[in-house]
Amino acid sequence: MNSFRFTNFLTSNIEIDQAMIEHIVQKCVTKIVEKGTFLLQQGDICQHTFFVEHGLLRQFSIDSKGKEHIIQFAPENWFISDRGSQYFKQPSSYFIQALEDTTVLLLDEAFILHLSKVSPAFLEFNNKLLHNHILHLQTRITQLLSATAEERYLHFIKMYPDILWRVPQTLVASYLGITPESLSRVRKELAQKQK
Amino acid sequence: MNSFRFTNFLTSNIEIDQAMIEHIVQKCVTKIVEKGTFLLQQGDICQHTFFVEHGLLRQFSIDSKGKEHIIQFAPENWFISDRGSQYFKQPSSYFIQALEDTTVLLLDEAFILHLSKVSPAFLEFNNKLLHNHILHLQTRITQLLSATAEERYLHFIKMYPDILWRVPQTLVASYLGITPESLSRVRKELAQKQK
Repeated sequence: MNSFRFTNFLTSNIEIDQAMIEHIVQKCVTKIVEKGTFLLQQGDICQHTFFVEHGLLRQFSIDSKGKEHIIQFAPENWFISDRGSQYFKQPSSYFIQALEDTTVLLLDEAFILHLSKVSPAFLEFNNKLLHNHILHLQTRITQLLSATAEERYLHFIKMYPDILWRVPQTLVASYLGITPESLSRVRKELAQKQK
Repeated sequence: MNSFRFTNFLTSNIEIDQAMIEHIVQKCVTKIVEKGTFLLQQGDICQHTFFVEHGLLRQFSIDSKGKEHIIQFAPENWFISDRGSQYFKQPSSYFIQALEDTTVLLLDEAFILHLSKVSPAFLEFNNKLLHNHILHLQTRITQLLSATAEERYLHFIKMYPDILWRVPQTLVASYLGITPESLSRVRKELAQKQK
């Protein structure tokens, strides 16, 4: 079982005994996927919340002109899911794909709901995850509406300190909602400022 | 007590008995505010989730250049809050302001948590609200990243059928993340298509 990071994450974030943590970890399925594999396809109902043990995932949409737009990256210790689709059992607007060979743990919605009912500590934990997700989404909207390309880039490297070295620049530009040319310009300008 | 819409909303969306609904409604404070009043200021910790009984609210941020960006409108039957700030007790990035004379019901986080623990039905209800909020935020991000001005406008009038007639066009443009000139152009083009 590759669940070292998940066990650690639970131990640090949820006040329940070790036996319960082991029960949760044992109930989760571990999946090892190759770079390029899709864990969710647009139009499908998202069945799981994924926790990244090792590797890197991305969540993205494809617009009517066929252009990709990255919504989220998920490196080690991140959760990723279309929680709206998962909860309401409605077709997802997103793809989730491995950008590296990746090990994920799969949590299904029924199990999350069950744990929330039997364990007040898990209810608090899931609440924390949901609110954290909301916080991220809100920040993303504010950034897209009001931040300059430089501000978006600086926020990005703070949130994802190592992704810049793990993915092509075009994917970073797609996440930031700017062109790869704008991203190059921003990086050059920041490098000059630091001289 | 002005809680006709809230009582109806609960009755339609939560499977609990009438006595419990009355208990919830009685615990909520009703507030009547004049047009222009702020219910949340940037930098403050958001204390409540607001349910709009009557009137109209907006949630917005102000960027480093002093420009306003509208995140959400909340007409009758909508909830509005900075749930991230409310949950994590951290300063909000947003303002919530009345765009019309408005009657709101105030739900505080402690009461929401308490009800989630004592009533499995309320837990389900709050979960539904949180996931619905996530769905809205995700759609907003996808729209901002990938939709054309026309697509954003069409989505807007579907989601908020009457807001166009209740607020100045500059506020609609601010929500859509486009200039008022682009909004005028889109509306003109759509009107011509319908001829």
